[in-house]
Amino acid sequence: MALKNREIHLARRPEGLPAVEDFRLVECPVPDIEDGQVLIRQLYMSVDPAMRPRLTAGYELDHVMAGGALGRIVQSRNGDFAEGDLVRNPLGFREYAIADGRGLAKLAPEPDLPLTAYMSVLGGTGFTAYGGLLEIGKLKDGEQVFVSTAAGAVGSIAAQIAKLKGCYVVGSTGSDEKAAWLRDEAGLDAVINYKTTPIRQGVKAAAPNGLDVYFDNVGGDHLDAALASMNTLGRVAVCGMISGYNQPGSRTAVHNLSNIIYARINIRGFVATDFMHLRPQFETDMRGWLKAGKIKWRETVLDGIAEAPHAMVGLMQGENIGKMLVRLSAE
Amino acid sequence: MALKNREIHLARRPEGLPAVEDFRLVECPVPDIEDGQVLIRQLYMSVDPAMRPRLTAGYELDHVMAGGALGRIVQSRNGDFAEGDLVRNPLGFREYAIADGRGLAKLAPEPDLPLTAYMSVLGGTGFTAYGGLLEIGKLKDGEQVFVSTAAGAVGSIAAQIAKLKGCYVVGSTGSDEKAAWLRDEAGLDAVINYKTTPIRQGVKAAAPNGLDVYFDNVGGDHLDAALASMNTLGRVAVCGMISGYNQPGSRTAVHNLSNIIYARINIRGFVATDFMHLRPQFETDMRGWLKAGKIKWRETVLDGIAEAPHAMVGLMQGENIGKMLVRLSAE
Repeated sequence: MALKNREIHLARRPEGLPAVEDFRLVECPVPDIEDGQVLIRQLYMSVDPAMRPRLTAGYELDHVMAGGALGRIVQSRNGDFAEGDLVRNPLGFREYAIADGRGLAKLAPEPDLPLTAYMSVLGGTGFTAYGGLLEIGKLKDGEQVFVSTAAGAVGSIAAQIAKLKGCYVVGSTGSDEKAAWLRDEAGLDAVINYKTTPIRQGVKAAAPNGLDVYFDNVGGDHLDAALASMNTLGRVAVCGMISGYNQPGSRTAVHNLSNIIYARINIRGFVATDFMHLRPQFETDMRGWLKAGKIKWRETVLDGIAEAPHAMVGLMQGENIGKMLVRLSAE
Repeated sequence: MALKNREIHLARRPEGLPAVEDFRLVECPVPDIEDGQVLIRQLYMSVDPAMRPRLTAGYELDHVMAGGALGRIVQSRNGDFAEGDLVRNPLGFREYAIADGRGLAKLAPEPDLPLTAYMSVLGGTGFTAYGGLLEIGKLKDGEQVFVSTAAGAVGSIAAQIAKLKGCYVVGSTGSDEKAAWLRDEAGLDAVINYKTTPIRQGVKAAAPNGLDVYFDNVGGDHLDAALASMNTLGRVAVCGMISGYNQPGSRTAVHNLSNIIYARINIRGFVATDFMHLRPQFETDMRGWLKAGKIKWRETVLDGIAEAPHAMVGLMQGENIGKMLVRLSAE
């Protein structure tokens, strides 16, 4: 009996904030695999802010979307993979995926960590935070740091790594619940709820000694606020600019750019592939921090492929704390 | 008989474009020098875009201004300096200056170069272009380069260094006369007169292969235009943002910042002191290029200290080609 697959297609390109109607759940049979191929039953898939620009340009209309996922090999006609292997793969937004082995990374999970950790704090998410802060932001011990969307998947890890480096860390977030988590659990020095405090005023008050590093996930008014507070030779590591993603044309006006020259600021956009050489060091450091209980992480897990559109919409509205995941089948 | 000095004071802080009435010519006696001091008769002084922000905050009201100058020692009670020595010094905006030796750099000019070259192409101006392009912009041979205010003191040198490195070089300037000089003398590949062509459209048309390096002297709409054309891993070396200097509050809106993340762009503000280790290499390279006739440079020289305010106002209105200097006495 042929297996049935369910996958998410992009039905139309969102104007502004995505809506669940922009996506379509499609059922289709899973074809038989051929020589060299494997069949993956996905366990979890990731929903990331960086997917939003691809909804506008990147993802094909009426095709299955893609994104980070973790699955188990359920059939293999490829000598490199055996049934039962866990593989990280870029074939999210579907319950079953067929692959020829390229882009799959076998995972040997440690028993004392949940599998989802490999999709968040120990995965590309944690690595993005680590490299963005240390390599792009060139963080030095004891500096003044601001992280926007600090309760988000990447932000929450970046903020805590900065704390581990002895920095004074300010975070911004959009709810009192998330602010409380950042203060009480993640241990940030100051937290700004940007929905109740104007961000520029909030940053000025929370960082009286200015900022040496700004880890930017937001752009727009957050970047403006950070620029106004940057110290000489400050660095802005731009991981994302979510504030612009949902504006038609993605044109976010920023006004304080003259500070780039006055304070000799370095602003740099990046993706994790810019510093792949750090991956082994990241794995070592992060496993050590996790074992020592020095990094807290949160996940927001929705259940079932049909929830993937809600996960995307909710992510854009800040409904998640930490990594936004969709569980696609039981472990 | 006591020597008479003439110097320029800041009389009021300009709102927007500076006017000659913002400055005051003041006559005062030159005091006798004391042990350890020297008396300098200034020959040339520099007028730079970077002085504009200091008119708003930096220079003291009703005090003599300061800036780069080249002068000759006419009296010395300091063993390190002899009468007749030429010294570069930071004591512009006055005919005579008294110094204790700190901040003075003796100059041994080569006979085949005019003294003014040491105030422009072989001075801080040329060095700023050199380090900004090579160290901050990380220019690689053969790249696609855009230089704004390319007929200005720094821009004209940066554009020609990029040409010497085998790059395709686009420049912007504000008059047909300057555009013709850039094309016909400086050898740029394409020139945009931003007063007759919208800059974004101009850059798109002049740089069909995008931009790898943007040497920014302007900010604002020029930075916006460059960001819209930047290639992946492009670099923006921010030497100045003159477009914002004359706007109250220096707030220039830029809209295309989301490209920082999409193209992983690096934007970095700098001053020449950020790369002082390159100075010897710069001197060697630039002398070689000048001897080989590979770099053209222009100067706009006004005559007499009373013209210094006009030099500042004219600079802000783009009346200069190349370095803006004021001759303070005959060589």
